[in-house]
Amino acid sequence: MQNRITRLFGISYPINQAGMIWCSGWELASAVSNAGALGVIGGGSMYPDILRDHIRKCKAATKNPFAVNVPLIYPDIDKHIQIILDEGVKIVFTSAGNPKIWTGILKDKGIKVVHVVASVKFAKKSEEAGADAIVAEGFEAGGHNGREETTTMVLLPLVCNAVMIPVIAAGGIASGRAMTAAFALGAEGVQVGTRFAASIEASGNDAFKKKIIETGEGDTKLSLKKLVPVRLIKNKFYEQVQQAEDKGATPEELQQLLGKGRSKKGMFEGDLENGELEIGQVAAQIRDIKPAAEIVKDIWLEFLDTKKRITEL
Amino acid sequence: MQNRITRLFGISYPINQAGMIWCSGWELASAVSNAGALGVIGGGSMYPDILRDHIRKCKAATKNPFAVNVPLIYPDIDKHIQIILDEGVKIVFTSAGNPKIWTGILKDKGIKVVHVVASVKFAKKSEEAGADAIVAEGFEAGGHNGREETTTMVLLPLVCNAVMIPVIAAGGIASGRAMTAAFALGAEGVQVGTRFAASIEASGNDAFKKKIIETGEGDTKLSLKKLVPVRLIKNKFYEQVQQAEDKGATPEELQQLLGKGRSKKGMFEGDLENGELEIGQVAAQIRDIKPAAEIVKDIWLEFLDTKKRITEL
Repeated sequence: MQNRITRLFGISYPINQAGMIWCSGWELASAVSNAGALGVIGGGSMYPDILRDHIRKCKAATKNPFAVNVPLIYPDIDKHIQIILDEGVKIVFTSAGNPKIWTGILKDKGIKVVHVVASVKFAKKSEEAGADAIVAEGFEAGGHNGREETTTMVLLPLVCNAVMIPVIAAGGIASGRAMTAAFALGAEGVQVGTRFAASIEASGNDAFKKKIIETGEGDTKLSLKKLVPVRLIKNKFYEQVQQAEDKGATPEELQQLLGKGRSKKGMFEGDLENGELEIGQVAAQIRDIKPAAEIVKDIWLEFLDTKKRITEL
Repeated sequence: MQNRITRLFGISYPINQAGMIWCSGWELASAVSNAGALGVIGGGSMYPDILRDHIRKCKAATKNPFAVNVPLIYPDIDKHIQIILDEGVKIVFTSAGNPKIWTGILKDKGIKVVHVVASVKFAKKSEEAGADAIVAEGFEAGGHNGREETTTMVLLPLVCNAVMIPVIAAGGIASGRAMTAAFALGAEGVQVGTRFAASIEASGNDAFKKKIIETGEGDTKLSLKKLVPVRLIKNKFYEQVQQAEDKGATPEELQQLLGKGRSKKGMFEGDLENGELEIGQVAAQIRDIKPAAEIVKDIWLEFLDTKKRITEL
């Protein structure tokens, strides 16, 4: 199967792994790319030198296309972009910020740019800024999330109707069934995060990976809405935030409670009680930690099966 | 197309209209049933005598099967059930409560019973209680909603894997594209609420219907989570609740703010500022008020088109 997304990236399957802080280094990105999908290095949790190192190791580990994800709100954004240019990265996913500033700069260097959005408004802004594609991410997704709380089922048709560039669906997608659903809603590709966070090659702490496959329905919640909304697994830290919010805590009080380095503590160092554990609702469907290549294959084969089942209805 | 849902209800298309308080009386239910889908009288906002009147008018207006929706938490539930038995209603949708108590009583009289759930736990309870099918309703749905906040995209595969009885998808479904997506995820039918609330035959106030088609992304929010979570259009009443919650209001304070008759005030009397306006996120996809029969036809034809598009991928 070839479509606008496989041609844009030069890949075999219209599937990309989400750029995830603390979880998606070169090992995961290269494993996904070697399996025929698109691996993405999550630059958001990396110092510039670390990012350079991951890009170099990824280039050495795969001959296939891969991408780097850069959250646009990060303080070191200039350094990250310079490294991406220096190292000849060919595909960049931008997120968490205004696509206007950086898209043109990257495109001028011949880089394919994909921006992650949670609303039609930002989908249109991305298209106007010259993005080659967008990721439309629903409320069920892990990590940082839109204030509108629009779910993947509702968001996708809205975004697909609003832009001409191809749309990649994100949020709630960990299987071929969900991939088929996303295509029915108008997507031409899927971005898969949570399922790859529970892979052998993910760089998260083993305790965090084990926690993901134990996470059930209702065990994640969109939290810290007075700051930047983020979907977290409920733990001691989450309960502290919840209690503070129930008592009417101000954004400043919440910021103080959050402090610094919570996500590293949780996902990378494995402090399951005091860290931030960012994961999607779809963790409730995941019960094993598998090699990334097997995840790509499973999703693709189930997509073909589901397509066949729908055809025969 | 025939499947377990069309056979269970004796209908032409595996589509049912949601039982909605203040919006789905006999006019809407009979119009949907006459169009070959399943119309549902929303008993939750009706006094017993009113419910009897609507059932009788519905029987006179259609020869096709129709159903009645009964929220199990309602004080007059005994009277509602007695009227359903007296009037020979053949299909009952139960919601908002434990299916254990009433399912057996209805089934013993030969009535088909469908229970509405928002989690695997209650899906299994419904199956054990003898329900013929379940509606699995995601976070994006209008009105009362589950505490887990699981979206349709994530909930459906979980529920479809957990039970043997057929599953009807609800939440975010207003089009044939979404219907195809729901079938890809494992559903055998779809429940459509918001789209029918904005129909000619819906019994909601015209001002409310107009408000629905003006509702955009992020304009509805799950509110009153300390009481029973309910998805509302943001208005003056919603903002009052939000401000109270931001300051740490107790459930008792919220109950006092809510008072009585808010939903009637909003949806039936058309007080758009002080009433509760219950509607799903998918309102953002709806821009016209149409006859119910046209809605059924549009969804069905787009479902066939989307199936074809998926086949040709």
